[in-house]
Amino acid sequence: MANSFGQLFRITTWGESHGGGVGVVVDGCPPRLKLTEADIQPDLDRRRPGQSKIVTPRKESDTVQILSGTFEGKTLGTPISMWVKNEDARSEAYSEMATKFRPSHADYTYSAKYGIRNWQGGGRTSARETIGRVAAGAIAKKILRERYGVEVLAYVKQVQRLIAEVDPETVKMKDIEANIVRCPNPAAAEKMIRLIEKTRKAGDSVGGIVEGIARGVPVGWGEPVFDRLEADLAKAMLSLPASKGFDIGSGFGGILLTGMQHNDLFRMKGGKVRTVTNRSGGIQGGISNGENIYFRVAFKPVATVMHEQETVDTELRNTTLKGRGRHDPCVLPRAVPMVEAMTALVLVDHALRHKAQCE
Amino acid sequence: MANSFGQLFRITTWGESHGGGVGVVVDGCPPRLKLTEADIQPDLDRRRPGQSKIVTPRKESDTVQILSGTFEGKTLGTPISMWVKNEDARSEAYSEMATKFRPSHADYTYSAKYGIRNWQGGGRTSARETIGRVAAGAIAKKILRERYGVEVLAYVKQVQRLIAEVDPETVKMKDIEANIVRCPNPAAAEKMIRLIEKTRKAGDSVGGIVEGIARGVPVGWGEPVFDRLEADLAKAMLSLPASKGFDIGSGFGGILLTGMQHNDLFRMKGGKVRTVTNRSGGIQGGISNGENIYFRVAFKPVATVMHEQETVDTELRNTTLKGRGRHDPCVLPRAVPMVEAMTALVLVDHALRHKAQCE
Amino acid sequence: MANSFGQLFRITTWGESHGGGVGVVVDGCPPRLKLTEADIQPDLDRRRPGQSKIVTPRKESDTVQILSGTFEGKTLGTPISMWVKNEDARSEAYSEMATKFRPSHADYTYSAKYGIRNWQGGGRTSARETIGRVAAGAIAKKILRERYGVEVLAYVKQVQRLIAEVDPETVKMKDIEANIVRCPNPAAAEKMIRLIEKTRKAGDSVGGIVEGIARGVPVGWGEPVFDRLEADLAKAMLSLPASKGFDIGSGFGGILLTGMQHNDLFRMKGGKVRTVTNRSGGIQGGISNGENIYFRVAFKPVATVMHEQETVDTELRNTTLKGRGRHDPCVLPRAVPMVEAMTALVLVDHALRHKAQCE
Amino acid sequence: MANSFGQLFRITTWGESHGGGVGVVVDGCPPRLKLTEADIQPDLDRRRPGQSKIVTPRKESDTVQILSGTFEGKTLGTPISMWVKNEDARSEAYSEMATKFRPSHADYTYSAKYGIRNWQGGGRTSARETIGRVAAGAIAKKILRERYGVEVLAYVKQVQRLIAEVDPETVKMKDIEANIVRCPNPAAAEKMIRLIEKTRKAGDSVGGIVEGIARGVPVGWGEPVFDRLEADLAKAMLSLPASKGFDIGSGFGGILLTGMQHNDLFRMKGGKVRTVTNRSGGIQGGISNGENIYFRVAFKPVATVMHEQETVDTELRNTTLKGRGRHDPCVLPRAVPMVEAMTALVLVDHALRHKAQCE
Repeated sequence: MANSFGQLFRITTWGESHGGGVGVVVDGCPPRLKLTEADIQPDLDRRRPGQSKIVTPRKESDTVQILSGTFEGKTLGTPISMWVKNEDARSEAYSEMATKFRPSHADYTYSAKYGIRNWQGGGRTSARETIGRVAAGAIAKKILRERYGVEVLAYVKQVQRLIAEVDPETVKMKDIEANIVRCPNPAAAEKMIRLIEKTRKAGDSVGGIVEGIARGVPVGWGEPVFDRLEADLAKAMLSLPASKGFDIGSGFGGILLTGMQHNDLFRMKGGKVRTVTNRSGGIQGGISNGENIYFRVAFKPVATVMHEQETVDTELRNTTLKGRGRHDPCVLPRAVPMVEAMTALVLVDHALRHKAQCE
Repeated sequence: MANSFGQLFRITTWGESHGGGVGVVVDGCPPRLKLTEADIQPDLDRRRPGQSKIVTPRKESDTVQILSGTFEGKTLGTPISMWVKNEDARSEAYSEMATKFRPSHADYTYSAKYGIRNWQGGGRTSARETIGRVAAGAIAKKILRERYGVEVLAYVKQVQRLIAEVDPETVKMKDIEANIVRCPNPAAAEKMIRLIEKTRKAGDSVGGIVEGIARGVPVGWGEPVFDRLEADLAKAMLSLPASKGFDIGSGFGGILLTGMQHNDLFRMKGGKVRTVTNRSGGIQGGISNGENIYFRVAFKPVATVMHEQETVDTELRNTTLKGRGRHDPCVLPRAVPMVEAMTALVLVDHALRHKAQCE
Repeated sequence: MANSFGQLFRITTWGESHGGGVGVVVDGCPPRLKLTEADIQPDLDRRRPGQSKIVTPRKESDTVQILSGTFEGKTLGTPISMWVKNEDARSEAYSEMATKFRPSHADYTYSAKYGIRNWQGGGRTSARETIGRVAAGAIAKKILRERYGVEVLAYVKQVQRLIAEVDPETVKMKDIEANIVRCPNPAAAEKMIRLIEKTRKAGDSVGGIVEGIARGVPVGWGEPVFDRLEADLAKAMLSLPASKGFDIGSGFGGILLTGMQHNDLFRMKGGKVRTVTNRSGGIQGGISNGENIYFRVAFKPVATVMHEQETVDTELRNTTLKGRGRHDPCVLPRAVPMVEAMTALVLVDHALRHKAQCE
Repeated sequence: MANSFGQLFRITTWGESHGGGVGVVVDGCPPRLKLTEADIQPDLDRRRPGQSKIVTPRKESDTVQILSGTFEGKTLGTPISMWVKNEDARSEAYSEMATKFRPSHADYTYSAKYGIRNWQGGGRTSARETIGRVAAGAIAKKILRERYGVEVLAYVKQVQRLIAEVDPETVKMKDIEANIVRCPNPAAAEKMIRLIEKTRKAGDSVGGIVEGIARGVPVGWGEPVFDRLEADLAKAMLSLPASKGFDIGSGFGGILLTGMQHNDLFRMKGGKVRTVTNRSGGIQGGISNGENIYFRVAFKPVATVMHEQETVDTELRNTTLKGRGRHDPCVLPRAVPMVEAMTALVLVDHALRHKAQCE
């Protein structure tokens, strides 16, 4: 069991793809924050299936409802319960999944671990589970923006071999939202969209990289030695479905440099201690240093493909399975709000933890 | 504050580079496990400075003492307190660190966060902090080996541009320990050692990749949705000093494949559900699938170099600083036991958590 | 923020008296347990206002709905989300509460702590919050009964000065439910009911003692040194609204005895180590010893009375307030299922924790 | 496993009666607090055996050593490790305990739970375990005093039938420490001492009540709904060895009053919202209301008596056992610093938690 995330700003998500709905309880939200569904819905819309021709076509409005924790439009400091009702319950479309384990999905491991499995739409393993994260993340983003002046953004940096040049220092939300693939480089975006469409037509899928950034984080957030800020970000990202890797600042690329080349020299600038370069990615010794935080998350190609593939059934016999129904050629555009949400959740939690001990 | 790690097999580390010592309390260890200092010391010796010509030369025996939690050579189920006394307290060697922030170290962020800093040898940010982790990890490895038949290994996979071909399915501990760089490919190891020696002479440093593997993990470990096994591994690795990235299975490289190419097909083998390939890295949906777990951790080049570098002092004036005294040209050989320890700690914790809910 | 309870069988409650509803998420429930709303509703009915003439008359059906975590009538091992919609939203009945702090209620402290307060029906401080606990407790009771053979009961032991003789070794659920005050001693129950009715007519209230028992708990549950079984029970009980005290076994009365008189001697019986007396209350050194667990919880008289009382308003002026609307002369009959629920939650959590480390 | 206490000011204790020593790691202490061993030792001296003729005579100095977490006499914000070496290792005095379960001790339950037991001096169940709590509590008391102006006191209120009149509003530390039984009412203290001495000569033991108070706690500490301030205090107290009950404010006595009589009316006083009476014990709805907090803890008579008593041996045969060696006729004088320590630990933790969410 591990459906809670965060120490002081703590979310608990629940819900399967098919069933009553999906939701989240947010515990520890500061009181007196203005909050209505209108603050939450936009991010859910960015996460929603069917939002464009390059994502999975499930038809649901994903309309969020706040059930508790607010009064006259403000947070009470009590738990905020939010939920989205499940609407599109076409369980018949998945009936083959009842008896066959989809390759590279979690059907087999869930079945082995729990001895039972809701095979309808993937049950708890459905990306639908991230609705609760994104809803909670919208609150976290609002707190960061209003109380700390921190901006959290994410965008598609790479789709398969297509890499977009993006300046993390200057990229803006409107550039990201300017196209359906959520890549702020228009030329690269166009190529990416074409690749994803081609992939969709081929019944296949592609993966890539989402880059996340946080601007305006003050010096001092992060809790050594185990809850270093980058450690909690890494966990947050690797807890997202289909993610396979995380690196921060210079990351895997930085190992090609020597220490002399890699070090971020300190220099005073505008009365502040600043680094000349930012290979550290805004975090040193697990604590934010005031520079922009930026990191990358690798997402594998979606496992469901529209071709027959070898697999095993629940009676432990070799068989084959062909993906049917909804086909998501690329998870990246919808992963963008998920990465933002998890980033914001980590940061708010650390803001509160830092305040508790050090302020 | 975050000096504890794990939910059910929980460690709490303490100690600064200079001061009384460093140590760890292990809470939740199963009772009746045979345990003496002889089970712990070998891993501490692998972590120790001064063990070879290519690592930092600090001269300490790092002799561990068990203070509680065992009786007549067996664990009691009560907390196991272990510590290593600090011996080599040459604080004068670091006096310049009292007033200058070392570039790409945590001096500045600790100072800003806590408003106070033990500048002697880096204080809590010293790699000496990992002694507690490695000591606790030795217990975790023993539990995994004796009670679950699980073997945890790590080795140096890459030093700067030098990449070693290693088969994670077959590599053995004795191959890893056959040379001082802990790379099980002898030809690559030789080149790596030469590169590190050259780097040391140049007063510079290099980084690289440590690959970690776990063999024999049963199906079912991992706790969705937030404590997916890979999420906890990612956090564990990113909590290590100097780490900058983590990926598992196909990882960042997997994004070049399409879903068709990337999927691990299921096939019955020896009466068991197995995957034909292992791009998932032994984990699907956050839960182990019975295949070998393997992942990579990127470590940046050590920040301390023997050259003058621009920086800022505690009075917020621009200045320069030249690394003096002990020089660690490459953290990788000593990072190997750290990666093993953190892997083992994650796995034991998940073994107990799985048992609690699902067995 | 602290709306979660339990380590491995972990509940998170949410909801205010007036608003969308109240609910709970249960994380860590073992998979494959048969579970439908029919397992939950009976305990909610025992907790419900309006169930008899001696409790508060709020008119709601408190019908529970399971939104997630089950499939085809069995638990999945995923979070179980349950909720009860709020129906009786007569907020006008409480409008005076918007500007005046009710004496011995939490109006003032909530207002001071959070700087905001949902004054409708007490908001989060309403006993309505316990719906989530009782719903989750019903699951815990089922697990204890079916998987461990443990029976949890509670009953009214004392109302003001009226004390009922009850044998905790033999008392049965049907005796407890035989009357509306939930006291299994019929003669005492009759007097208690008369006292409560008289008190209600006087517009006043009375408190008393609920005794809780757990029969069939195996030897070994409880986690020293801080999560001793009695420590977690004490916390659980003192977290209930209106509770003021807890004692276990001989409790406060035991201090009149000397050690010679108080000690529970061990004696073999039926091949088992048993105690001749049970002043320990079934727990020794924080761990269950196989004897029946029994303890008492003191509940103060309900603070809302139908008389004018001195108080202060939100503008910090002296004023008076007279209780209006619903009047609960005695919380005890409805506290019985709450005590059972919290007891069961503590026990299941400890069953899982014991299994994780020691089995 | 449960050897940690607290969420943000978190202690982890370790150690057995016989073995290397006993100690504690304190995580989350605010940085820049002046702290040396001289702040800790006085409370350990009050807890120490052999301090007077009415307590157990074990001869150890219990000298504390701070191993980490401070620098130049101030806290660093890093974990503070403290320990006390075991000196008086007369294990032979207890050899009979190796094969016989002492009545009303934890020998049997530990043996059953863990399948192994350090029988020397009670191992982990020895009151010696509380050294870590008292050492950590001394830091907590200092923080409360210096940063919040909160004073924590405890004293012996009752020994068996002897009850001392004490005014919790005005009692002072020097009155408590004026006699060896730590009862601030001199006349009662004298009687208590005589009773304990008489009991000691008879080879028997007596229990009683320690009253704890906290003065100056600001409005707002306490985290509903589960971590109500009184709930955490109850848990803290019931986690102490030999404790059997807890009540707060009017407590068990309050149930004799009606709501009209029991309610604490609000009235403005000195520009503040105050209560006319304090039957709430300084806490309403789980949150401090600015009045003095006071509560009682029942301690049973110590189980070890110097007389032969029936019991069972480790081979499950009926036998007898006579207490030998050290004899503690009354745990109360030494329980006083334990109650203070646990109170302070709860309060500091809640101070930090309140700050995190609400300030």
